[in-house]
Amino acid sequence: MGEWHEECGVFGVFGHPEAANMTYLGMYALQHRGQESAGIACSDGSVVTFYKEKGLVADIFSEDVLARLTGSNAIGHVRYSTRWALDTKDAQPLVVDFEDGSISIVQNGSIVNAYGLKRELEAAGSVFQSSIDVEIIIHLIARSRKKRIEDRIVEALNQARGAYSILFLTRDKLIAVRDPHGIRPMVLGKMKGTVAGTVICSETCALDLIEAEFIREVEPGEMVVVDSCGVKTYRPFMPVIEQFCVFEYVYFARPDSIIGGRSVYQVRKEMGRQLAREHPVDADIVIPIPDSGVPAALGYSEQSGIPFEMGLIRNHYVGRTFIEPRQSIRHFGVKVKLNAMRDVVGGKRVVVVDDSIVRGTTGRKIIKMIRAVGAKEIHVRISSPPTRYPCFYGIDTPLRRDLIAATHTLEEINTYLTSDSLGYLSVEGLHACVPRNKSYCDACFTEKYMIPLEAEMTEEQLHLFRKSINIWPLGDRSARRGRGE
Amino acid sequence: MGEWHEECGVFGVFGHPEAANMTYLGMYALQHRGQESAGIACSDGSVVTFYKEKGLVADIFSEDVLARLTGSNAIGHVRYSTRWALDTKDAQPLVVDFEDGSISIVQNGSIVNAYGLKRELEAAGSVFQSSIDVEIIIHLIARSRKKRIEDRIVEALNQARGAYSILFLTRDKLIAVRDPHGIRPMVLGKMKGTVAGTVICSETCALDLIEAEFIREVEPGEMVVVDSCGVKTYRPFMPVIEQFCVFEYVYFARPDSIIGGRSVYQVRKEMGRQLAREHPVDADIVIPIPDSGVPAALGYSEQSGIPFEMGLIRNHYVGRTFIEPRQSIRHFGVKVKLNAMRDVVGGKRVVVVDDSIVRGTTGRKIIKMIRAVGAKEIHVRISSPPTRYPCFYGIDTPLRRDLIAATHTLEEINTYLTSDSLGYLSVEGLHACVPRNKSYCDACFTEKYMIPLEAEMTEEQLHLFRKSINIWPLGDRSARRGRGE
Amino acid sequence: MGEWHEECGVFGVFGHPEAANMTYLGMYALQHRGQESAGIACSDGSVVTFYKEKGLVADIFSEDVLARLTGSNAIGHVRYSTRWALDTKDAQPLVVDFEDGSISIVQNGSIVNAYGLKRELEAAGSVFQSSIDVEIIIHLIARSRKKRIEDRIVEALNQARGAYSILFLTRDKLIAVRDPHGIRPMVLGKMKGTVAGTVICSETCALDLIEAEFIREVEPGEMVVVDSCGVKTYRPFMPVIEQFCVFEYVYFARPDSIIGGRSVYQVRKEMGRQLAREHPVDADIVIPIPDSGVPAALGYSEQSGIPFEMGLIRNHYVGRTFIEPRQSIRHFGVKVKLNAMRDVVGGKRVVVVDDSIVRGTTGRKIIKMIRAVGAKEIHVRISSPPTRYPCFYGIDTPLRRDLIAATHTLEEINTYLTSDSLGYLSVEGLHACVPRNKSYCDACFTEKYMIPLEAEMTEEQLHLFRKSINIWPLGDRSARRGRGE
Amino acid sequence: MGEWHEECGVFGVFGHPEAANMTYLGMYALQHRGQESAGIACSDGSVVTFYKEKGLVADIFSEDVLARLTGSNAIGHVRYSTRWALDTKDAQPLVVDFEDGSISIVQNGSIVNAYGLKRELEAAGSVFQSSIDVEIIIHLIARSRKKRIEDRIVEALNQARGAYSILFLTRDKLIAVRDPHGIRPMVLGKMKGTVAGTVICSETCALDLIEAEFIREVEPGEMVVVDSCGVKTYRPFMPVIEQFCVFEYVYFARPDSIIGGRSVYQVRKEMGRQLAREHPVDADIVIPIPDSGVPAALGYSEQSGIPFEMGLIRNHYVGRTFIEPRQSIRHFGVKVKLNAMRDVVGGKRVVVVDDSIVRGTTGRKIIKMIRAVGAKEIHVRISSPPTRYPCFYGIDTPLRRDLIAATHTLEEINTYLTSDSLGYLSVEGLHACVPRNKSYCDACFTEKYMIPLEAEMTEEQLHLFRKSINIWPLGDRSARRGRGE
Repeated sequence: MGEWHEECGVFGVFGHPEAANMTYLGMYALQHRGQESAGIACSDGSVVTFYKEKGLVADIFSEDVLARLTGSNAIGHVRYSTRWALDTKDAQPLVVDFEDGSISIVQNGSIVNAYGLKRELEAAGSVFQSSIDVEIIIHLIARSRKKRIEDRIVEALNQARGAYSILFLTRDKLIAVRDPHGIRPMVLGKMKGTVAGTVICSETCALDLIEAEFIREVEPGEMVVVDSCGVKTYRPFMPVIEQFCVFEYVYFARPDSIIGGRSVYQVRKEMGRQLAREHPVDADIVIPIPDSGVPAALGYSEQSGIPFEMGLIRNHYVGRTFIEPRQSIRHFGVKVKLNAMRDVVGGKRVVVVDDSIVRGTTGRKIIKMIRAVGAKEIHVRISSPPTRYPCFYGIDTPLRRDLIAATHTLEEINTYLTSDSLGYLSVEGLHACVPRNKSYCDACFTEKYMIPLEAEMTEEQLHLFRKSINIWPLGDRSARRGRGE
Repeated sequence: MGEWHEECGVFGVFGHPEAANMTYLGMYALQHRGQESAGIACSDGSVVTFYKEKGLVADIFSEDVLARLTGSNAIGHVRYSTRWALDTKDAQPLVVDFEDGSISIVQNGSIVNAYGLKRELEAAGSVFQSSIDVEIIIHLIARSRKKRIEDRIVEALNQARGAYSILFLTRDKLIAVRDPHGIRPMVLGKMKGTVAGTVICSETCALDLIEAEFIREVEPGEMVVVDSCGVKTYRPFMPVIEQFCVFEYVYFARPDSIIGGRSVYQVRKEMGRQLAREHPVDADIVIPIPDSGVPAALGYSEQSGIPFEMGLIRNHYVGRTFIEPRQSIRHFGVKVKLNAMRDVVGGKRVVVVDDSIVRGTTGRKIIKMIRAVGAKEIHVRISSPPTRYPCFYGIDTPLRRDLIAATHTLEEINTYLTSDSLGYLSVEGLHACVPRNKSYCDACFTEKYMIPLEAEMTEEQLHLFRKSINIWPLGDRSARRGRGE
Repeated sequence: MGEWHEECGVFGVFGHPEAANMTYLGMYALQHRGQESAGIACSDGSVVTFYKEKGLVADIFSEDVLARLTGSNAIGHVRYSTRWALDTKDAQPLVVDFEDGSISIVQNGSIVNAYGLKRELEAAGSVFQSSIDVEIIIHLIARSRKKRIEDRIVEALNQARGAYSILFLTRDKLIAVRDPHGIRPMVLGKMKGTVAGTVICSETCALDLIEAEFIREVEPGEMVVVDSCGVKTYRPFMPVIEQFCVFEYVYFARPDSIIGGRSVYQVRKEMGRQLAREHPVDADIVIPIPDSGVPAALGYSEQSGIPFEMGLIRNHYVGRTFIEPRQSIRHFGVKVKLNAMRDVVGGKRVVVVDDSIVRGTTGRKIIKMIRAVGAKEIHVRISSPPTRYPCFYGIDTPLRRDLIAATHTLEEINTYLTSDSLGYLSVEGLHACVPRNKSYCDACFTEKYMIPLEAEMTEEQLHLFRKSINIWPLGDRSARRGRGE
Repeated sequence: MGEWHEECGVFGVFGHPEAANMTYLGMYALQHRGQESAGIACSDGSVVTFYKEKGLVADIFSEDVLARLTGSNAIGHVRYSTRWALDTKDAQPLVVDFEDGSISIVQNGSIVNAYGLKRELEAAGSVFQSSIDVEIIIHLIARSRKKRIEDRIVEALNQARGAYSILFLTRDKLIAVRDPHGIRPMVLGKMKGTVAGTVICSETCALDLIEAEFIREVEPGEMVVVDSCGVKTYRPFMPVIEQFCVFEYVYFARPDSIIGGRSVYQVRKEMGRQLAREHPVDADIVIPIPDSGVPAALGYSEQSGIPFEMGLIRNHYVGRTFIEPRQSIRHFGVKVKLNAMRDVVGGKRVVVVDDSIVRGTTGRKIIKMIRAVGAKEIHVRISSPPTRYPCFYGIDTPLRRDLIAATHTLEEINTYLTSDSLGYLSVEGLHACVPRNKSYCDACFTEKYMIPLEAEMTEEQLHLFRKSINIWPLGDRSARRGRGE
């Protein structure tokens, strides 16, 4: 129900006369992957300029700012970050000076041994100005004794474990690396027509907007180096089994993006069909929770033959903040976004389809709102398995104790939601819907974390570590030192 | 395809401890009726405070501003206005001092004899600071020799012809008036539970958000007076045949609003069904232009049995302004909002459903975009008749020469759109879908303007007159004086 | 001590290719006459555009805004207004449409019979959107039955009593009028060199900045009409004795402006010399309260032979708002602006010179601050007589009860200030310093109000009437109606 | 003439319940030392929060922001930076995480071997996110193998040469260090009364505003450590001859600050007296260039007996940006700030006093403006020696080729300024005016750079290195690498 926070989207272009503008458009198309801050770094071959700010891409980048981001190579980033950040220190790109000149970096993903690497680097005298993983990676690159930047990057990333789709921009190269498990998506495209330009970005929807041709996905463990001589590819990492995040299909990716050869929309419809097979119900209408539940609801309707209706209307002018009335309004938080229609659901047995449930609080409000306008029965159908485990590979999930499916049985969840029945897609069912040409990470459903976490850290520690944005838990740090001695 | 500009939405509340907050929420729910400026005037029984600004409701009103709008009575307004306005002089509410104290006004609609009334008032020594109709009405009220404000309002409105749903806020009264033809919607509601409060506003969706109970529509020609003694109703105007704007069902109203006893969503679905009956086609899928075309497309699919699909994906982060790349991108303006999915429409015979066509330029881009991803056939189906005549009753339509259906045959439009076939709903079909308990204005389809326009003005003069926002065409004015002599 | 609030500064230019830019510069030079809001209206001979906003001239007008204010004729205004105004409705220029086309107006001054005129106009059906005098004047102009705008203006102003220096901008004319008493300043200038352009504005310092030549003062009761045929002058009003505001010399005008043939700086120095003659004292140093007290302190030093020193240092970065610490800091409000220097005043007998005292609270803090760094004696010398009466002619003075000199004897004031002695310039002494070629209004010192106020209103009523910005005292208004019947 | 750019002001407070508020006030009082950006870091003993932004202190820090800066220990910084910075990366405080926890730093000064240290650190694997010296220092601290933070700081600073007054804030300590030469000022104060709190800041004027008691100057080479046990002092550096920047007396410090036991104002007056002794002239009046020239002009007047006048009036509403008219206005840049008064200087032989001359362009405009209003003779007197050499110790001076005194004889400068005579204070004269209890750096006048610069860098390289804000000269860097190999 739209409550997962994707960490990032990345976009890079090399050799295009309007690099900053193309990056702006690409980030705009990737805005669904992060709405809190955005940034662009641009290189004209000798000077790097960059700009990053809190807010939406279309609000941050004025013509004035774009005009000052000159050069034919650029990388950009959209990011989810916490609402209480006072500044932009955790925004990307990270732009630094090191032995070899300037380098700019954007990342989608998460380094699971970041905590340990940071401690080691600090012990060796490194200082950190942010709490983002790429700052760790850049330190590793800077400390590498290799000559070529490609070798430095490989050496650095060989020390890091985790999920990452990273773009590096140096004076004369755009370098893309995807972790060996290929957890986060990354695609390669080419500007069409007479204009040159190689594009590497998170999803194909960004290629569509700028009319770039989709060439292929960057493969797990691949390093793509783009420079004035063309595009070269390397396989510098030990091959492992691909672990593409199955939740990209469930919720994160835009429905019009192509992953594994199929549009996310079609895969979601198939999940809805499979859901109908697994959890049929005798009902009058199928309604989605807009917009995330729409494709699965269409699939459920198609498979079950129960008519599809838009029983919940979405307000499209939802602002960033909203002033609540002092007097309580029932289901207020949800009503600002959605309204239930009595003459669609009234007196009906309703199947409500959504992609997933996080805490369940929003879902409960929606069910109650539908009931309040007269629905006779409400059957909740979720087009993914129960999410019982946090993601450590690039998604900002709540702690386990806050995931309703981690702490409650299905029956309890059904009771909490106040629904008449509840059905989740099975893990097997999910796997049956996604393309066969990939293998997947489904740890959030199965606890099968294929990339080992740091032994010494509890989930909560990891969580806090990754949340330590803008504040420095000095007490914790010295406590740790005490432990370390 | 979302290119009509509704002029306004109005909201008023009387006798509620959080009047400004409720008005803020109500305007938020009515934001689809106008996105350019918004304002609230609030009375605590002795002092009126107001605030109006350019922008969206959720952006304009901070907690700080709302806290300064004190009192238990308030009116609010959302407005479409031109992008080149330097200031807020044409924003509403209009708050003035006159013989009888202060009065605040908001209006949805358009006075068709405004031009003549303004000339007469100017000749009598009135001055105008804006180009909005309510300033004319307030002058007529101020010049009335009646004692009671209700009588002044009636005397004033008896001189005005046109479409109007107006709210007046005086020191101790909230007064609502709907023109005798009842062209623009207006409903009456009551706060539920122990909190008092009468609400009058444009659409029921605003009642839903604040959990007010829908009582009934304010009737054509009715004046509702709310004060501390309760709610009184008057019928001060000569009764005429109701002329409710049928386009409110087609496009303007929010789908979850109830008008004439039915949700707009259901009426739109019925239009889609009727469209399928009138213009059947052998096709593989039905896709809407989101979001306005969704209900009609569902109806078309239901009636025809052709599967419904979301073939166009909408970007939800569209900003107010957008910086275009210098290099041309095909269908750029449309691509920023929509993306067509190859693996949904590719190789398919596609029915594309939308509510209406204005200039056709956007439609043409969308058709070409769908064709570009491989659609085999594209059949455009419009869930309203061809819009051939401008609206003078509160909608900011282009001049006739810019309405494609006014200047081209259906065949020519089909050719222009590059579609394989084109079908519009018939006028009779449209009337068959809307509730029978109302009669309708369909002048934009039929040229049957039931409220006569000013004899002396051409369409273009009227248009310019209504467009004269923020600039004073001094030359024109003295030219006119010259002509008049 | 800088606590008087001048109401306005005006600036107009006719026939200059960069009219808006020149007006921007002129208003910038007149910024000392009002810091709360500013506005420009510009005419290109057929279209009027305008912009007004809260804030300082240099902050409000961007290149973007100035570029949209096209045309070779313009008027501008700077204004003091209350800090609690939520919007700009009382900002000037006022731009209206009336029978004769568009007209824009800016004013410096105050109409003393505004209350009665407003009541009469309201009774005749006029409506008011602001509480500024020029709205009353524009109604009188609009209701005039004369043909020529010049005649309309004269007829309107013949009904108004008070202090006004007004600029009108019509399609093809810039018209300046100064009230018969000539209370507020107004000067006429001409652009130098090859660029044409006539300028009329409040003070000569605005001419200096744009390098216009000072021609002469607009005379009391004069009407200057500038159009494409040149500059014409009229004397349409009954001549009366000139009553130029002597306080313009004391405090309001910029020291570098020339009024009555002498720079305000030299007149202020002479006031300081005269003050030394009237109130000599045996002391070690003379220090001004910067910046307003500097010229008089120099004069006092020159006459007395006591050395001049800068014993108080001013912080030049004072912002609009300032966040106070919770913990009290002595003399905090003053310390943010001024700091006293121990090694200048320590152990010294100090003469502190300022132009005037309003409430005395700031003065008291300053005296205590000087004492705290070791001054042995502190002798306050004020270069104007005690201000005992409010100004109704264009200055926003406090009520009498808040003027310390109106309610306390000199001895009591001296005690309150904690000074060792206190001396004010005598009324005769003041008149001896200002140019002889003018006669003066000194009502704030002498209560000799030469323009009669409205019989029926008390000072407080007048005050509230003039303060009724942004709020409508509905209760008062209807109470008044009750009284009137 | 006000064209030197001081790099910074620092302020720190330990053990005060309103640490952020006090720092805000202190920075406000130090605003003259840098107007481009400001920042505060605050520690509550376990968590550090910080905020930095472009703009003036009073504009940046709202009550909302200050409320979020919690804790009883804080440091703050005001900074001059280049106008073309797109972001705040070079603003201070710099807040980093390192082996020992969090540390925040602010600095006034300049490390002359920064370039070499940065290269060494980069070679050892450090990365840099800004171009500010404190980032180098923090790397040296982080790489130190000492245990105690005090020892780390000493080890780090022993590698750095230059001028620095630095404040460090750790979890439980406020540490101040002043370079052994004591080039930049730094003072120690104590909150008065019952409230605890130790303050360390750049100038005493900041102590005055918050009513802290001045204890003493932090001595050259001293390290002051403030923690919950009290204030400790260390002398960890090799003692050298004090080299206090004499230009602090000439221009940088606020006149009301006490340095070396005397107010800067009194020292400046003495410079004026000495100037009159060295360069007497037969003239009618002495006028300062306000405000920087006022004290010296008073001294000149006192010594020479020539009357002091304010012949130039300053506009106090100068904004940050100013839109120039397309049509040229003579002396425009200067006129926006200053206006010359004909009836003060007309027909007079005028001595114009200022503190220094940088490029001479502004001075030339001022002289011409004074001449244009009728001055008979203009004698320029400068209260410091000719500035012929750039400062490398914390002041942002132009390159030598842009310093008029570096490239022209006095006669040539006099000709360029169009003055009738020109006199600079002698170096000996300057030294005669400043307190004897200090010894001084006067390298900008004498080229006696007591702290050696980096051998390998030319002045221009150093300049560019220090200017490399927000852009990375990639080409240069790799070129350098080439050279280095």
